Amino acid sequence: MVLSQQYIDDIICTALTEDINYTDITTDNLFFATHLSNAYLIAKDRGVLCGIAMALRVFDIVGSVRIKKLFKDSDNLKKGDIIATMEGETKSLLKGERTVLNILQHLSGIATYTNKCVKAVEGTNAVITDTRKTLPGLRALQKYAVTVGGGRNHRFNLSDCAMLKDNHIAAYNGITGAVKELRKRLPHTAKIEVEVTDFEQLREAIDNNVEIIMLDNMSLEDMTNAGEITAKRALLEASGNVTLDNIRQVAQTGIDIISLGALTHSVKAFDISMRFEK
Amino acid sequence: MVLSQQYIDDIICTALTEDINYTDITTDNLFFATHLSNAYLIAKDRGVLCGIAMALRVFDIVGSVRIKKLFKDSDNLKKGDIIATMEGETKSLLKGERTVLNILQHLSGIATYTNKCVKAVEGTNAVITDTRKTLPGLRALQKYAVTVGGGRNHRFNLSDCAMLKDNHIAAYNGITGAVKELRKRLPHTAKIEVEVTDFEQLREAIDNNVEIIMLDNMSLEDMTNAGEITAKRALLEASGNVTLDNIRQVAQTGIDIISLGALTHSVKAFDISMRFEK
Amino acid sequence: MVLSQQYIDDIICTALTEDINYTDITTDNLFFATHLSNAYLIAKDRGVLCGIAMALRVFDIVGSVRIKKLFKDSDNLKKGDIIATMEGETKSLLKGERTVLNILQHLSGIATYTNKCVKAVEGTNAVITDTRKTLPGLRALQKYAVTVGGGRNHRFNLSDCAMLKDNHIAAYNGITGAVKELRKRLPHTAKIEVEVTDFEQLREAIDNNVEIIMLDNMSLEDMTNAGEITAKRALLEASGNVTLDNIRQVAQTGIDIISLGALTHSVKAFDISMRFEK
Amino acid sequence: MVLSQQYIDDIICTALTEDINYTDITTDNLFFATHLSNAYLIAKDRGVLCGIAMALRVFDIVGSVRIKKLFKDSDNLKKGDIIATMEGETKSLLKGERTVLNILQHLSGIATYTNKCVKAVEGTNAVITDTRKTLPGLRALQKYAVTVGGGRNHRFNLSDCAMLKDNHIAAYNGITGAVKELRKRLPHTAKIEVEVTDFEQLREAIDNNVEIIMLDNMSLEDMTNAGEITAKRALLEASGNVTLDNIRQVAQTGIDIISLGALTHSVKAFDISMRFEK
Amino acid sequence: MVLSQQYIDDIICTALTEDINYTDITTDNLFFATHLSNAYLIAKDRGVLCGIAMALRVFDIVGSVRIKKLFKDSDNLKKGDIIATMEGETKSLLKGERTVLNILQHLSGIATYTNKCVKAVEGTNAVITDTRKTLPGLRALQKYAVTVGGGRNHRFNLSDCAMLKDNHIAAYNGITGAVKELRKRLPHTAKIEVEVTDFEQLREAIDNNVEIIMLDNMSLEDMTNAGEITAKRALLEASGNVTLDNIRQVAQTGIDIISLGALTHSVKAFDISMRFEK
Amino acid sequence: MVLSQQYIDDIICTALTEDINYTDITTDNLFFATHLSNAYLIAKDRGVLCGIAMALRVFDIVGSVRIKKLFKDSDNLKKGDIIATMEGETKSLLKGERTVLNILQHLSGIATYTNKCVKAVEGTNAVITDTRKTLPGLRALQKYAVTVGGGRNHRFNLSDCAMLKDNHIAAYNGITGAVKELRKRLPHTAKIEVEVTDFEQLREAIDNNVEIIMLDNMSLEDMTNAGEITAKRALLEASGNVTLDNIRQVAQTGIDIISLGALTHSVKAFDISMRFEK
Repeated sequence: MVLSQQYIDDIICTALTEDINYTDITTDNLFFATHLSNAYLIAKDRGVLCGIAMALRVFDIVGSVRIKKLFKDSDNLKKGDIIATMEGETKSLLKGERTVLNILQHLSGIATYTNKCVKAVEGTNAVITDTRKTLPGLRALQKYAVTVGGGRNHRFNLSDCAMLKDNHIAAYNGITGAVKELRKRLPHTAKIEVEVTDFEQLREAIDNNVEIIMLDNMSLEDMTNAGEITAKRALLEASGNVTLDNIRQVAQTGIDIISLGALTHSVKAFDISMRFEK
Repeated sequence: MVLSQQYIDDIICTALTEDINYTDITTDNLFFATHLSNAYLIAKDRGVLCGIAMALRVFDIVGSVRIKKLFKDSDNLKKGDIIATMEGETKSLLKGERTVLNILQHLSGIATYTNKCVKAVEGTNAVITDTRKTLPGLRALQKYAVTVGGGRNHRFNLSDCAMLKDNHIAAYNGITGAVKELRKRLPHTAKIEVEVTDFEQLREAIDNNVEIIMLDNMSLEDMTNAGEITAKRALLEASGNVTLDNIRQVAQTGIDIISLGALTHSVKAFDISMRFEK
Repeated sequence: MVLSQQYIDDIICTALTEDINYTDITTDNLFFATHLSNAYLIAKDRGVLCGIAMALRVFDIVGSVRIKKLFKDSDNLKKGDIIATMEGETKSLLKGERTVLNILQHLSGIATYTNKCVKAVEGTNAVITDTRKTLPGLRALQKYAVTVGGGRNHRFNLSDCAMLKDNHIAAYNGITGAVKELRKRLPHTAKIEVEVTDFEQLREAIDNNVEIIMLDNMSLEDMTNAGEITAKRALLEASGNVTLDNIRQVAQTGIDIISLGALTHSVKAFDISMRFEK
Repeated sequence: MVLSQQYIDDIICTALTEDINYTDITTDNLFFATHLSNAYLIAKDRGVLCGIAMALRVFDIVGSVRIKKLFKDSDNLKKGDIIATMEGETKSLLKGERTVLNILQHLSGIATYTNKCVKAVEGTNAVITDTRKTLPGLRALQKYAVTVGGGRNHRFNLSDCAMLKDNHIAAYNGITGAVKELRKRLPHTAKIEVEVTDFEQLREAIDNNVEIIMLDNMSLEDMTNAGEITAKRALLEASGNVTLDNIRQVAQTGIDIISLGALTHSVKAFDISMRFEK
Repeated sequence: MVLSQQYIDDIICTALTEDINYTDITTDNLFFATHLSNAYLIAKDRGVLCGIAMALRVFDIVGSVRIKKLFKDSDNLKKGDIIATMEGETKSLLKGERTVLNILQHLSGIATYTNKCVKAVEGTNAVITDTRKTLPGLRALQKYAVTVGGGRNHRFNLSDCAMLKDNHIAAYNGITGAVKELRKRLPHTAKIEVEVTDFEQLREAIDNNVEIIMLDNMSLEDMTNAGEITAKRALLEASGNVTLDNIRQVAQTGIDIISLGALTHSVKAFDISMRFEK
Repeated sequence: MVLSQQYIDDIICTALTEDINYTDITTDNLFFATHLSNAYLIAKDRGVLCGIAMALRVFDIVGSVRIKKLFKDSDNLKKGDIIATMEGETKSLLKGERTVLNILQHLSGIATYTNKCVKAVEGTNAVITDTRKTLPGLRALQKYAVTVGGGRNHRFNLSDCAMLKDNHIAAYNGITGAVKELRKRLPHTAKIEVEVTDFEQLREAIDNNVEIIMLDNMSLEDMTNAGEITAKRALLEASGNVTLDNIRQVAQTGIDIISLGALTHSVKAFDISMRFEK
């Protein structure tokens, strides 16, 4: 996944405005543009780097800093790794620091956790994907981080792919009628996914030739049975109550996709510091 | 803390555009405006509610839904509590659902964790605050959630309050000169905070009459000693390596403020669902 | 297809600002807010109405006008039909007039022409769709008008559905490798479409199980043959050199989709006037 | 007419965001930044080029592409002309292609048709101008294309020039009073134009010394007579029911200005393709 | 002149965001939404009111306040006049106060000074106008205030009216060639104004039939002579070194327009206070 | 104070769009991009320069102009000083001229007047500051100019510093309760300022240990007494009825801060011209 520069710049500018507002009353009152420093970004934990190009861009926007990247997105980091070195205006280094770190730590946190999930299912058929459970204004950024961690993307938005979830089925009173109606009106480029809670719904979804079926909070045994019933006539997606502890077992049921909201809604920041050289 | 409607609406519109883009190809192809439903928001865990007024506002913007709020921000929730009931256009309920939940779950996650920290230090002198370690575009929203959880806000941005952190001190070569320079140039309305790593720096900061001193990653014993050395001549703030496990001990050193980046940079979503009534 | 109020309002406000800029030096200097008029919108040709709700909204934004809609989107109009009547501030009627008409005429022009194409293929299997050949900033609006005219939408944007066009195939050196690479990386929710120019490419696309195949500028005979070769294993889409004159013949080859850039890139405005009652 | 870079960039960014949204799931998953291609823009019809500098700019914004322009705005193209050659990142060429063509085809379509009208009246006194019948958000762009085709601009917006149209006159009850009122309040830099439907109104307008008079849908004979009555005391503008078929006759009545809504409200895209070199 | 609600709201929202940023830490921490107050706006000087409708709108946007307007734009105020009374949420009254006053004081300052100029030339032929010497982002607002004070507007922007100023004439090497070139390319709706510094240039401008001639910093005697030379063949505009002290003398030379940059570039705020009732 | 490039560019683009709108119909119709000129900025009065870097930036945005700055912000100018010389496209020089001058004249006007106030109190303890009485959208720019003139900034917005003004005290019914409430809820980084009108309120404020006390419109004698009563336990700020005539006397009372709304709400433009070299 490749994000547009325009989208990245909008997020950086929003973050800088939020963080600086009028002026940095500490830095701008202490350092002239001629005061130069060297600094570096250092990993304080083990994980997967994500967002380093955006960091470079923050300093482009704030001012005159040259960066030397020593790692790139998707690289594995261990504690103590120097991720990048920077030299340039002290002013810019200090004013950009927090914004750089807030972005890097969040995205690397997503990539790191996604990567743990991906590794946990290695050797199985299962693909790890994100969901629409993202934070306001940050969806594309978060979905990018999921791909950097080795995951895949689920649909980006409600225009992408049709999906009948529990509430749609409740409101429409059943799957078959809804799928038929959608087939008459959807772009021919759109797939249909249906969320099912039991085997009866599963069979109804299969009979309607939907492309993807989400198994909602099913037991491992039920997921295995669902695979047999489906017999590859649709992609099967597991969702709900999947954690690092049970993800391999879920994958071993033969499921095609495991989607995890936690990749983006419950991110633990990855610890990175910026330090000045003395 | 009270957020402006304009700021809230901007975030909601961004989130809705991100989530819907062109049109909701499922919902908009299945339901006419005349199709009505009843639904409700239900807590699936124990915690502190935050952001319920924004939820109401999402449905205002998407369309014709009446909400009845049964809980308000700062209220304690237990598993199974019905937070609000909604009735109105099925279309709007389905199109707003994800945005409503993404906001509510994130903010309630912050309020819930903040509240655990606040309760953990009850009876001590310590105040729990956030930091500038927030997510791009969401700072005010996240800081609002901290106050809903019973925490207080640290400075909002770099214009608020001057702060000499380790990197400033390294670049300026010492505390005393930097504080003197700041006093000549700062707005008279701004306080000065200095981050110190040892007692020598602590004494230098006190001698310069700074209003707030941050103790960087000090041991419990050193924090206690710092309190004695300072003797109320400045507010003392603990930062770094504070978790729910040790936060009470930190508070018991007599520290004035405990600031935690994790309140906003490593949020665990609070689990809330929206369900349609059958 | 349902457009968000926010998207509609943004377009209206842009159009009004473009048309009025500082102030309407004619109207604002002649009429006070208390001067009221009655006016109506009248069709000057035969066609399909599209965009009437946006017209209502222009007057909401400009000022105090009550509208009575006598026709709604998708309705057939004949010359002389009164589409809506308005009463309210003369000022607002005059200031909104041009913006109302520019929107209505463009959208009704799209719906009218689309509808002619749809009617021309009635009774065949073929579905009429738009393309990405739209005007800057107006894609969603134009695609909405296509659906109002009875057409369907092709993909909305490059995130929706993967498509290997001639230039992709040229640059990647062939279809098979590209499809295999995409299958490893695409969201599982995305279909793949391939543009082919001859039967060799067609067979390669079918062998790769792509969901949709676009036949580029093929003769009627070749399209018929392509249908036989494909034997329903993929959707077939005709594109290029299709006009009202030959569209029925194209449909009769058994093709599934006929996509026409002209629906949105070469729109003839549908003639509507606004008149004041004397 | 010269458009600001800021206006052009806003339109390009809007168009790119509309067309790409999250990411180009085809191109971004197939080509690395190091994959380079050569491509060219080729005219598939005879006409007048318009918007080539914006094309260059699209590729600037998308990425690393060098363009060599072989034609410039206002140049005449014949079928098969290579308009420009491009070399650079395959990614950028593919992602920018549609936006480049959508802009070029629309603007060249306007310039080409305008130019036909201009040529049709060559040797007469008449000037061809556009109107305010433009598409939302594209007025300046469309008016630029009219000038590239050899036309002139009518007023840009309602602040430019006062104009009493049929509906103003109906609402104000007559020309004389309205003109007198305007003279008392208008900027002294603004002209007044009045739309008239018969000779009585024409004489009233002349008696009020208005600078421009629009003859609404008059016959050729009436236009000739109107010229004699006016005797150069005001500029005469013909509007309504003018097509390429009758435009020369209209011009030969001695009219000063012929304004055509069709230049911008019913644009036929000019056919241009982008092809990769093998 | 009538400003659009959208333009007014944009300015108000910008001003409120600038003034409140995150939250009003004083007011929002002291008053609940249920705390109500009464307050009023009071004139502390003699002058002309301008912007009162915007004040009403600030409170609409901030919150729940009812306003009773006792004066309207263009009304004369004397010291002690109660301009409006407000009742509603204390919170909103306090948070909106500064923004309300900043707008009202600036606009009323412009209207008051403009009105002094207008009154000073009463009985003469001269019209008082503004210039393009306005503050960034506030041009329409400032030009509105000029009309409220009884002045008229000069051109709004560089698209309105062509004007050859000293620097244009210097760069183009003379008036005649430049006017001829403009006549070939300008919209027929645009007038031409030329700035002249001596009688030779004046005669050249007249010979070219330009509609308006600006006399740059001429003496009273020269202005009188210029009037005689011109003999109503063009409008004459005086500009430069005009103050309240000499404006009547300037007007008495028979000049048509006196334009003053000081109306908008050197505004003295008109003193208005907001007070709470005890 | 250092402003972000983004904030500066937004203001410049707004100002250019306001001033040029569609196109500069004079300049763009007279000069090709190849026509070059030399020009310079010249001071026409004595004062302090402010905003010269923004001027450079306007020409960056408009087009191809090289500037040579001969003075920098805070420099003293005398009548006739050449501030900068420019060479480049005639087009850009003419189109940027008004925007450059509007910005430079306003900011230099603020810096010049501020500097007069600063010089008037030289040798005393008093610091000159601005207020929140600024123009919509221009606060940061105006506050920057105050610092260039040698003044200091008061709080930037309502999130910075708590302040109980007369209306807060009236609504809350007294100082002590309000201060106590604020202490429980404010960020620990925020100071409290209280406005007092008599010695009783002054003593109450001191007893509550507020950091800053504003003396509202007190006589010189009362200010002197207030200083004695306060005895350095709080900073004292004088506000109201301070002019260049009495400012030194106010400073000599021993007051710490003198804040003047007039620095930003009643700015007299500093006279600067741009001239072309012949």
